[in-house]
Amino acid sequence: MTTKRSPSLAWPGNTSRRLGLLALLAAAPLPLAAVSPVRAQGAAAPGLGAPGPTRDEVRAVAPALERYAAEALFGDLWRRPDLSPRDRGLVTLSALIARNQAVELPRYFDLALESGVRPGELSELITHLAFYAGWGNAMSAVPAARDAFARRGVGADQLPPVSPRLLSLDEAAEARRASRVGEDVGPVAPGLDRFTTSVLFRDLWLRPGLAPRDRSLVTVSALIASGQVAQVPYHLNRAMDNGLTRAQAGEVVTHLAFYAGWPNAFSAVPVVKGVFESRPD
Amino acid sequence: MTTKRSPSLAWPGNTSRRLGLLALLAAAPLPLAAVSPVRAQGAAAPGLGAPGPTRDEVRAVAPALERYAAEALFGDLWRRPDLSPRDRGLVTLSALIARNQAVELPRYFDLALESGVRPGELSELITHLAFYAGWGNAMSAVPAARDAFARRGVGADQLPPVSPRLLSLDEAAEARRASRVGEDVGPVAPGLDRFTTSVLFRDLWLRPGLAPRDRSLVTVSALIASGQVAQVPYHLNRAMDNGLTRAQAGEVVTHLAFYAGWPNAFSAVPVVKGVFESRPD
Amino acid sequence: MTTKRSPSLAWPGNTSRRLGLLALLAAAPLPLAAVSPVRAQGAAAPGLGAPGPTRDEVRAVAPALERYAAEALFGDLWRRPDLSPRDRGLVTLSALIARNQAVELPRYFDLALESGVRPGELSELITHLAFYAGWGNAMSAVPAARDAFARRGVGADQLPPVSPRLLSLDEAAEARRASRVGEDVGPVAPGLDRFTTSVLFRDLWLRPGLAPRDRSLVTVSALIASGQVAQVPYHLNRAMDNGLTRAQAGEVVTHLAFYAGWPNAFSAVPVVKGVFESRPD
Repeated sequence: MTTKRSPSLAWPGNTSRRLGLLALLAAAPLPLAAVSPVRAQGAAAPGLGAPGPTRDEVRAVAPALERYAAEALFGDLWRRPDLSPRDRGLVTLSALIARNQAVELPRYFDLALESGVRPGELSELITHLAFYAGWGNAMSAVPAARDAFARRGVGADQLPPVSPRLLSLDEAAEARRASRVGEDVGPVAPGLDRFTTSVLFRDLWLRPGLAPRDRSLVTVSALIASGQVAQVPYHLNRAMDNGLTRAQAGEVVTHLAFYAGWPNAFSAVPVVKGVFESRPD
Repeated sequence: MTTKRSPSLAWPGNTSRRLGLLALLAAAPLPLAAVSPVRAQGAAAPGLGAPGPTRDEVRAVAPALERYAAEALFGDLWRRPDLSPRDRGLVTLSALIARNQAVELPRYFDLALESGVRPGELSELITHLAFYAGWGNAMSAVPAARDAFARRGVGADQLPPVSPRLLSLDEAAEARRASRVGEDVGPVAPGLDRFTTSVLFRDLWLRPGLAPRDRSLVTVSALIASGQVAQVPYHLNRAMDNGLTRAQAGEVVTHLAFYAGWPNAFSAVPVVKGVFESRPD
Repeated sequence: MTTKRSPSLAWPGNTSRRLGLLALLAAAPLPLAAVSPVRAQGAAAPGLGAPGPTRDEVRAVAPALERYAAEALFGDLWRRPDLSPRDRGLVTLSALIARNQAVELPRYFDLALESGVRPGELSELITHLAFYAGWGNAMSAVPAARDAFARRGVGADQLPPVSPRLLSLDEAAEARRASRVGEDVGPVAPGLDRFTTSVLFRDLWLRPGLAPRDRSLVTVSALIASGQVAQVPYHLNRAMDNGLTRAQAGEVVTHLAFYAGWPNAFSAVPVVKGVFESRPD
């Protein structure tokens, strides 16, 4: 987990390759790139779709919304210390992919990469969410990721291998999980029971390209962002077992209020509270 | 609240600037514009994406669906007296934005504007839904709104100011809300508690560009449309305190059955019923 | 219900008109079309939007995801005998339309048509989901269906008539349904009660272009895929009354784990189990 502060969070997506990290490091509070190369490139790239609106386009429709973006979102939320910009990048991308909002992905892939998320981690995040948010959601994220990688010259050598040496499995914990799911799921959907074990818990979760703590953070974020809180306790406990603190977990909920809407955040609060109360730490 | 009937609701989006309000006022039951300028313009506008299919395109795939659109949807639902076309415009746009269905927005922005919704109210609706439906949902709505405004020559002078004089706050009610949320949310997500007070209830909800009754109508519609009924009681009570009648609330559910699917409407019924039964009016 | 196996399921969407069914019947395990005509055509078709990424594009971002697609998804799931490829086509399309994932539709419209789903059935599926998943979801599916039909020269004569002779109604069962809904829904949303009877149960459900068993399968799939399990019992019972077996129902849940995400599948399991336990068969 990287704790460095993102250099500038003002309206990501208007940042350009030409301005690049230099301008970001200068922390210009609200860069006003007249033409966004991201958008220009996006228009040419066949699979990308139109990237999200620029700051000027937002202002032309909803001046107040532009102010909230500058002040509450990028000027406040993203700078709060309880969650690193890197973690916020993972949480935001998980929410956008879980909610199938491909239009906003280009700016947030850029922002995540500029905040310390590695390309290989993004690759694993997309792969992970194919299973936790739906296959089509992952497919819709591929073009924007491909373009973000291309802008940085990220090649195959920076991506996780297809079949890496897997992390070691906690056989006892996995046996408990498999037994419980086997009882609940097996009699109804034996295929689901089998895939859950073979593909998810004995393969996907053991891939080393995304740390277990981050993998759980991604899962919890996707669950909250799509209003599916029933499985939050299991995955939030897993995340906290792997190092996510209470303050970070609470701030994930705060962050998701903006990206998944206030109602989803409010629905998550009692569930997160229940997990907190059930833990000794 | 405007009570005028929308002049013609037959298959919005095939209406054109050339035909314009004149043709609409003639109430031609099913105008058959050979070429839709909305679509033509949409194809050129970089941020818009492909607007929804024309009537002919629907007929080429699903003739029955075209009949249901002409008869049940535009020939019946939109003409029912329990909810004005203006309110239906707000409800429909709230559902589409909450469900991130940008493709259908152009025709319904046009229809809403032709049914008495003011550009400034649409601007506030989008801003409001950034918080209640998710930031990306509002972002995805910006290009279609920009184009709808451009088609009508709506300029910055018709949009709400960034920082207007706010409506007066009911301090007692707000204190009760803040106390309750502070207890529930504060210990888990202190940031969420703080933003809810400072950004939402002491700022967003007090912006005068969208009447409190309409703001609650938009919120309730977004909640039902995205299957998040847990917060419906609070916001429906607020809407009814501000003038939404029982007949209107029931008709919102009926309207949303079409735009958010029958299951979401059916899930809302017992919740709305509970609110009705809890109120003296 | 067709039981023939789909000839090849390896990465649909890279199959082309030129390769066509011949190549599919050859069951080449992973055809590597350098250029996808579907994509090429899609780029030209105005209403289609960018179709989903090709296999190479996925590999360039997430090599592991490409392996999971080849092995777990198309190499395993789609070949499992508990559900026919034709049924999987219906289930997948229902999930994609319910989740508004138009980008993935072209390849799965093709796959469904190649697996035995008739164009008229797809037409009815889209019409049905207008009511069960939301009007905008059906609208978003129209362009991809139109293009899939155009690629095959499907004309109006292969589509269901607007007003066919309806299936006969089980008046006693319908009276029970109408009475129950009338009591629950009528006092809150009388319009919803009326449309449910007149448009849905005395019209849509009786259209002969999609068999009742398939119509229920589509409905159940859409409900699970969008996390709306409350109405699953009614519709799953209807599906099973019309011939869906327990093994098939369980496999629908397994299939949807991939296309709607593991959490939606897990949330469906106890509901499906409850239906199984409540039935004598």
